[in-house]
Amino acid sequence: MGDIQEKALKAHKEWKGKIEVINTVEVEDEMDLSLAYTPGVAEPCKEIYINKERVYDYCRKGNLVAVVTDGSAVLGLGDIGPEAAMPVMEGKCVLFKRFGNIDAFPICLKTNDVDEIVRTVELISPSFGGINLEDISAPRCFEIERKLKEKLDIPVFHDDQHGTAVVTLAAMINALKITNKKLEDLSVVVNGSGSAGIAITKLLMSVGLKDVVLCDSKGAIYKGRDGLNPVKQKMAEVTNSLLKKGSLAEVMVGTDVFIGVSVPGVVTKDMVKSMNKDPMIFAMANPVPEIFPEEAKQAGAKVIGTGRSDYPNQINNVLAFPGIFRGALDVRAKEINNEMKIAAAKAIASLVRDEELNSKFIIPKPFDQRVGKMVAQAVANAARESGVAKL
Amino acid sequence: MGDIQEKALKAHKEWKGKIEVINTVEVEDEMDLSLAYTPGVAEPCKEIYINKERVYDYCRKGNLVAVVTDGSAVLGLGDIGPEAAMPVMEGKCVLFKRFGNIDAFPICLKTNDVDEIVRTVELISPSFGGINLEDISAPRCFEIERKLKEKLDIPVFHDDQHGTAVVTLAAMINALKITNKKLEDLSVVVNGSGSAGIAITKLLMSVGLKDVVLCDSKGAIYKGRDGLNPVKQKMAEVTNSLLKKGSLAEVMVGTDVFIGVSVPGVVTKDMVKSMNKDPMIFAMANPVPEIFPEEAKQAGAKVIGTGRSDYPNQINNVLAFPGIFRGALDVRAKEINNEMKIAAAKAIASLVRDEELNSKFIIPKPFDQRVGKMVAQAVANAARESGVAKL
Repeated sequence: MGDIQEKALKAHKEWKGKIEVINTVEVEDEMDLSLAYTPGVAEPCKEIYINKERVYDYCRKGNLVAVVTDGSAVLGLGDIGPEAAMPVMEGKCVLFKRFGNIDAFPICLKTNDVDEIVRTVELISPSFGGINLEDISAPRCFEIERKLKEKLDIPVFHDDQHGTAVVTLAAMINALKITNKKLEDLSVVVNGSGSAGIAITKLLMSVGLKDVVLCDSKGAIYKGRDGLNPVKQKMAEVTNSLLKKGSLAEVMVGTDVFIGVSVPGVVTKDMVKSMNKDPMIFAMANPVPEIFPEEAKQAGAKVIGTGRSDYPNQINNVLAFPGIFRGALDVRAKEINNEMKIAAAKAIASLVRDEELNSKFIIPKPFDQRVGKMVAQAVANAARESGVAKL
Repeated sequence: MGDIQEKALKAHKEWKGKIEVINTVEVEDEMDLSLAYTPGVAEPCKEIYINKERVYDYCRKGNLVAVVTDGSAVLGLGDIGPEAAMPVMEGKCVLFKRFGNIDAFPICLKTNDVDEIVRTVELISPSFGGINLEDISAPRCFEIERKLKEKLDIPVFHDDQHGTAVVTLAAMINALKITNKKLEDLSVVVNGSGSAGIAITKLLMSVGLKDVVLCDSKGAIYKGRDGLNPVKQKMAEVTNSLLKKGSLAEVMVGTDVFIGVSVPGVVTKDMVKSMNKDPMIFAMANPVPEIFPEEAKQAGAKVIGTGRSDYPNQINNVLAFPGIFRGALDVRAKEINNEMKIAAAKAIASLVRDEELNSKFIIPKPFDQRVGKMVAQAVANAARESGVAKL
């Protein structure tokens, strides 16, 4: 066990939980009790009974986010179940609070059934102002998110998809400035067709990317390939218009960007060398990337990002989800739509000023205090402009 | 609107929620992040995957209680739904924290269906160390609690039933000392056959009460009465062995104790006068009792308790549930059984010393600091002795 691993285990044993529920009100005498509880509490109840929206005025709902998982795709550990997922969900709640001042609560579900998950989240939704889906395996996560978005009038956001996509887009916006390339002209390979890979592809396409090939462990996904699940089939319809076939190495030839949300070490120097001039490499497999930055650089990569904090350009979701939820909650958005995601990505990218921008600094650091607020503001504005804000 | 009502509404608007979720850990740099979140967090996940029970060592589960309602029987307001129930559930969470140092979280459910409620609570249970059912209407609450107790290996406790029953028993224990009567010899009328009335009756019978008649709005419940729901039918089998029939006034004649968990003003002075010598009156309808203490006294009542804080002998659930859960969580009890409830009642009663005991002081005040700890200790011991404690 490594040093961090040992320390983390020890720390978790000491913490016995990384979150706590506390009171915002004092209860020190009978009067306090009669205001916070009976008989006084009946008044806000009656007001909310008349108009449900008032629950936001009198209760915590508007700042509460459920971090929901079934424990089926936790970190790189796979389907470890709801109990073993709890440390990650608590950790996520910690990040929500630290970076977004949001009260997040872990809800670990004892089922893998899509409809049961959807129904359960729907039934508990009155307590919450938003739902963050976390570490639910693909392709189930897509259906769960889609159904919940239909049923609920509060934001539903699968961070593994959209958080990653937003931060990748932010990195891409600045990488393009360095390489003097345009998104419309790029040829991109996305390796990994789980939740993150598909969401990244969709978000990039929504802002103008045309030539993109999505790969899974069997290589390029193309229209008509045997054995594709329905989600990959659908992606095959809208990507890879040249019907490229073959291995990752084969499809990477002559491309501008590699985006990896897959497994360690699948990209070699030769593969990078086979790409167009000034290639951009986002190798986000964690903790071991698809190719290490040193090697990618030696092979001619112009801009390199990973998921790691010990290399430049860390593509870290924490840059996105706290601010996105903060902004959505602040204007009581009914959903988190594509406009809001794009606004978040642009806000993150804008925090690297032109005079600071270089190949080793395309994206702000997670602890940059400005990020959460800027993202929240941009997302709130986008929610209003796109007509999904209630405030 | 009264003064308290107006103040409470204003206060709730200012508070915008009476609970908050905070972090127990600091996240100020990359190292903090890598311990509380990736990559360090994977270690406790792996440990829990090997042995689920370790979730108690590394996570908050063991101190988290879900306060679950469907909003169907909130205070005296009836079926006001999950959103309007939220202020009460937050208030309950405040009491859990203040009096038991428990992290309670409100789960307000958008369904009244028994099986859906049971399934939902079962599915979210991995996150919690205990389930407190709250303000769910009878007789559905009985079935929900029974089914959940079968399915879950964490404590499930419907406070409207058992909390009230425990505190009533505590009051009764001391009232008997004052009146020099014995539970075995008593004749008791319980008016109100919802969740509280039935639980009180059952708990008192479990410690020796023999002669008890349960009443509902139609008067005495007896074996063979038409139109009884299954729960009342079952109670009719074990209570009212003399098959008393008639109105509340009729069955109160010649009894020792009146316990009211019903509606305001249904007991008159004449009815109290018709009781045996030194009658005990527990008139717990809230905020207006079945009979006011002044009147009961004038009619000859020896000991009088109500649900109100502005009269002596307040029968307040807050004396019981925080300590009961505290004790159960401390020894990781699989359930809260009858032995634990009796132990809690005895502990509460014991806090009034013999030299302090009088007809106006039979039960400690809610803000007596000793209560929570004493109850927790007694409950923990009882859990161990009855073999339901895992620690």
